Amino acid sequence: MKKLINEPEDVVDEMLEGMVAAHPEYVRRLEGTNVLVRADAPVEGMVGIVSGGGSGHEPTHAGYLGEGMLTGAAAGEVFTSPTADQLQGMIAACEGGAGVLCVVKNYEGDVMNFETAIELAELEGETDVEYVVVDDDVAVEDSLYTSGRRGVCGTILVHKIAGAAAARGDDLSEVKRLAEKVVDGVGTMGMALTSCTTPEKGEPTFDLPDDEIELGIGIHGEPGVERTDVMGADAVAEHLTERVLEDLDLAEGARVATIVNGMGATPLMELYVVNRRVQELLDERGFDVGECWVGDYMTSLDMAGCSVTVLELDEELEELLGAPADTPALTVRGD
Amino acid sequence: MKKLINEPEDVVDEMLEGMVAAHPEYVRRLEGTNVLVRADAPVEGMVGIVSGGGSGHEPTHAGYLGEGMLTGAAAGEVFTSPTADQLQGMIAACEGGAGVLCVVKNYEGDVMNFETAIELAELEGETDVEYVVVDDDVAVEDSLYTSGRRGVCGTILVHKIAGAAAARGDDLSEVKRLAEKVVDGVGTMGMALTSCTTPEKGEPTFDLPDDEIELGIGIHGEPGVERTDVMGADAVAEHLTERVLEDLDLAEGARVATIVNGMGATPLMELYVVNRRVQELLDERGFDVGECWVGDYMTSLDMAGCSVTVLELDEELEELLGAPADTPALTVRGD
Repeated sequence: MKKLINEPEDVVDEMLEGMVAAHPEYVRRLEGTNVLVRADAPVEGMVGIVSGGGSGHEPTHAGYLGEGMLTGAAAGEVFTSPTADQLQGMIAACEGGAGVLCVVKNYEGDVMNFETAIELAELEGETDVEYVVVDDDVAVEDSLYTSGRRGVCGTILVHKIAGAAAARGDDLSEVKRLAEKVVDGVGTMGMALTSCTTPEKGEPTFDLPDDEIELGIGIHGEPGVERTDVMGADAVAEHLTERVLEDLDLAEGARVATIVNGMGATPLMELYVVNRRVQELLDERGFDVGECWVGDYMTSLDMAGCSVTVLELDEELEELLGAPADTPALTVRGD
Repeated sequence: MKKLINEPEDVVDEMLEGMVAAHPEYVRRLEGTNVLVRADAPVEGMVGIVSGGGSGHEPTHAGYLGEGMLTGAAAGEVFTSPTADQLQGMIAACEGGAGVLCVVKNYEGDVMNFETAIELAELEGETDVEYVVVDDDVAVEDSLYTSGRRGVCGTILVHKIAGAAAARGDDLSEVKRLAEKVVDGVGTMGMALTSCTTPEKGEPTFDLPDDEIELGIGIHGEPGVERTDVMGADAVAEHLTERVLEDLDLAEGARVATIVNGMGATPLMELYVVNRRVQELLDERGFDVGECWVGDYMTSLDMAGCSVTVLELDEELEELLGAPADTPALTVRGD
């Protein structure tokens, strides 16, 4: 294993220190925890939008802290849920008097710990805490770590849209409604050229021969649902996009947003080559593409590969997706 | 070789198509060429800022097209200079009546082709074309592809500062003066955990055993100047930063901007771990850090590794670095 780390057990702590050192105008760390919050949290009168999960998916989650996106982000150990007490501390630090919405990726550990944190918060008198569970991965119904589908790259669209709604002053029930609308209308499918290697284990989490790829991988080093011979970028783009479209079952001529997401070790050049065919295909099918993002949004350590996300848009979602955001990983001018 | 591409000979063309498909509001392609320009180029009355070079360094260069940065970006084949006629076409398309500044990374092919393009442009009557050559790599005096030092990640800071100066209406000589000030005050040093693999060759450009790293690598698959045993992230950060600081020989207490740049296949988590020690060290030495960027800015295909860039700031450079920019790869709100 070759990685730019020191001791494997220090990687999350040191990463968070490096983030705060890079972006003190955006983020601060809650002392003694692995929770980062917006530098100006809590934002008075604004619904706090918080998320969190295992580390190894950077820039998810803390890269999206800032105006128009997340108020708080809790980092667990690599591929491990943050603890309920840290999540509770985050909720408390992000409560600006208008309640808090937790955006939870659908993994058993995350859901359980967020639910416990919300119960603990209620015991402390914070009663306006709601949550939504994101389960956009169309590859599998149940997985190694989930009942139901996994939450993957579509989560970023929930952060963006819920964050924009909160920023313009929507109340908690309205922010939650919009977040759930994104959850209902988004699908993602991923693939890998290589496995990832966790710092602790130091070896690939699955073996993949030089002439094979995995389709339907998750973001925690789970093997995929299907192994095939190496395919060209166009064939990969078609497979992933078709599977997502099948699942979403969109109306003819629907307007959509797309993400071609890198898994952590994929050159941007390759993501654009994939995007070319994704857009061509959507055009052939008569869909109308609004926002089109290409880059590393939800990664899996050093995995090479990509995922394709499609979100069905309507007027209110599109407005929020294009609204201003100012975070370390995503900035939208919005003018 | 496993890559998300189709035929190796189509990779640049298809990447550019994928970029235009993703960002039609930012970029358009000059027909029949591998040149992308700002969607609204030429910008009347504004100095055009153009750059270009071999592909494989994405988001460099076309990712920086837009308000406050580049007006034109020419993409050569992978690690190969764009041709002089394409560069000339780019210069013509970016001339808005206030002249054009070419930002050239110091490689023999790039310098020669830009010089020829400028001569050709002059024959066509475009006399207000100037250029600056960026040579920020402190690792080597001469290299496989250069007389003098190589141009690497510091180039992005030239794009940002020259682009901001042009956007606020500075004239060509002033924009060039500022660009040269950045060139004079910036240094970069890089390292690799792995070699890159070009699509054409299909094999790593150099061999690197599992227990060794290369220090002083370039961005074209050149081996480094020194091979050592694997080091931890802190030791890597110290080595790179020290070498850059030695070269820059800054005044005590100087204010600087920094980039911890990924080479293409490095997880963001690791870049933040490196940044932690870079910032700690600069603080120990009494330097005062302004802008601090962490991410993939100037890559080398699928190489794993990083580089550290330090730029000496003064009031005028810092103002331009923080000024608004709106491009696919870098957005600065600037408010």
